[in-house]
Amino acid sequence: MNNSFYSFVGAEAGPWRIQSVQPVAGAGLETAPCLQIHNANLAGLPDGARWILRGVTSHARYVTRTEQNSLAQIQAPIGRSECDRAALIPLSKNSAWWALTQDERRELLEERSHHIQVGLRYLPAIARRLHHGRDLGEPFDFLTYFEYTRRDSAAFEELVAALRQSEEWQYVEREVDIRLERAG
Amino acid sequence: MNNSFYSFVGAEAGPWRIQSVQPVAGAGLETAPCLQIHNANLAGLPDGARWILRGVTSHARYVTRTEQNSLAQIQAPIGRSECDRAALIPLSKNSAWWALTQDERRELLEERSHHIQVGLRYLPAIARRLHHGRDLGEPFDFLTYFEYTRRDSAAFEELVAALRQSEEWQYVEREVDIRLERAG
Repeated sequence: MNNSFYSFVGAEAGPWRIQSVQPVAGAGLETAPCLQIHNANLAGLPDGARWILRGVTSHARYVTRTEQNSLAQIQAPIGRSECDRAALIPLSKNSAWWALTQDERRELLEERSHHIQVGLRYLPAIARRLHHGRDLGEPFDFLTYFEYTRRDSAAFEELVAALRQSEEWQYVEREVDIRLERAG
Repeated sequence: MNNSFYSFVGAEAGPWRIQSVQPVAGAGLETAPCLQIHNANLAGLPDGARWILRGVTSHARYVTRTEQNSLAQIQAPIGRSECDRAALIPLSKNSAWWALTQDERRELLEERSHHIQVGLRYLPAIARRLHHGRDLGEPFDFLTYFEYTRRDSAAFEELVAALRQSEEWQYVEREVDIRLERAG
C-alpha cells in the first residue's frame, strides 16, 4: 500500500468540528459532529462513524511547468497550527467531462475557467490538497481539502464562488460543501 | 464498486496459457501456467494462484480530440474470438516521470516518442486495453493488455520494439513482458 491514501471520516469525535454540510449539486451527505482525517486507506467504517470518503493524492493532471513553478513558490502546506478553519468539498463531474480529451479538459479548466490562476490568487492564505477518488470506485471523483485562518474566511468564500461561476463547473454533477472549525 | 477494475491472476488454470514471463527492466515476476482475467477488484490471491495484478481502465490521459477520433475509427475491441495470441505488459515509470508536469509528459510521450502515432500504425490488428494501477497502490503503474492473431505476431514485435527504443522508455524503471496463447 502507498501512503498517498486519505480517508475522511464523519464521526462522533475528531480534531475538526463540522459546522455545516451543505449540498451544492446532486445528493447531499449526512451531517456528523466531527471530521477525522486518516493518512491511510481504511477498509471500512470505524465504529460509530456516519460515513467515510476516500481519495489518493497523485501527480498533477493539468498544470504546466510554468504554473507548477509559480505554485511551488507560494503555496502553503496543510497542517499549519494557526489554521482554525478548514473545508472539505467532495465533488463529481459528469460523463460529458470524462468523455472529453486532455486538450479539451485543459482548455475548459484553465484557458476558459482560469481554475489554476484563480487558486494562485489566494495563496499562501488558503492551503489546498486534492485527492482523487474516481479510479478507486469512490462515490466522489475528487475530495478537495482546504485549511485557512478565520481572518481569511472571506477570501475562501470568494475563491469558492469564483470557481462555481466558471464554465468548468457546468460539468459538476454532485458537490457537497463541508465546513470545519478546529475542535477545542 | 465500479466495473472498470480488472484483476490479472497467474494461476494453475485459465483461458490463456502463459508462454513466457520475461523481465525487461527491474525485478521480474514468477511464472505461472495460465492467466485469468477478472473484470473485478479481487480482494486477495485466489486459491493456488501465484500472483495477482490489478488495474482500472480510466479516461484518456494524453490523446487530443483529433487523435481520439482517429483511434475510435480504427481500433478493435478486446475479446475477438480469432485472437489466439495475447500479451500482458506490466510497467512502472520512475519518479522523474511522475514529477514532470502534464505538458512535459505529453511532449515526451507523443511529440518526441510518437507513442500514439506508433500505436495507430498497428490498428486494428493489435487490440489494446490500458489499466492504471499507480493510484491504487499496486506494484505496477500500468498494465497494458494486447490481443492479436498468430499472423500478426511479427507486427506486435515491431510495435513493442519501437516503443522500447523511444525516449519515453528511458523513464521506465520496471517492465515485465508476459506472452500468452489461447488455451485449448
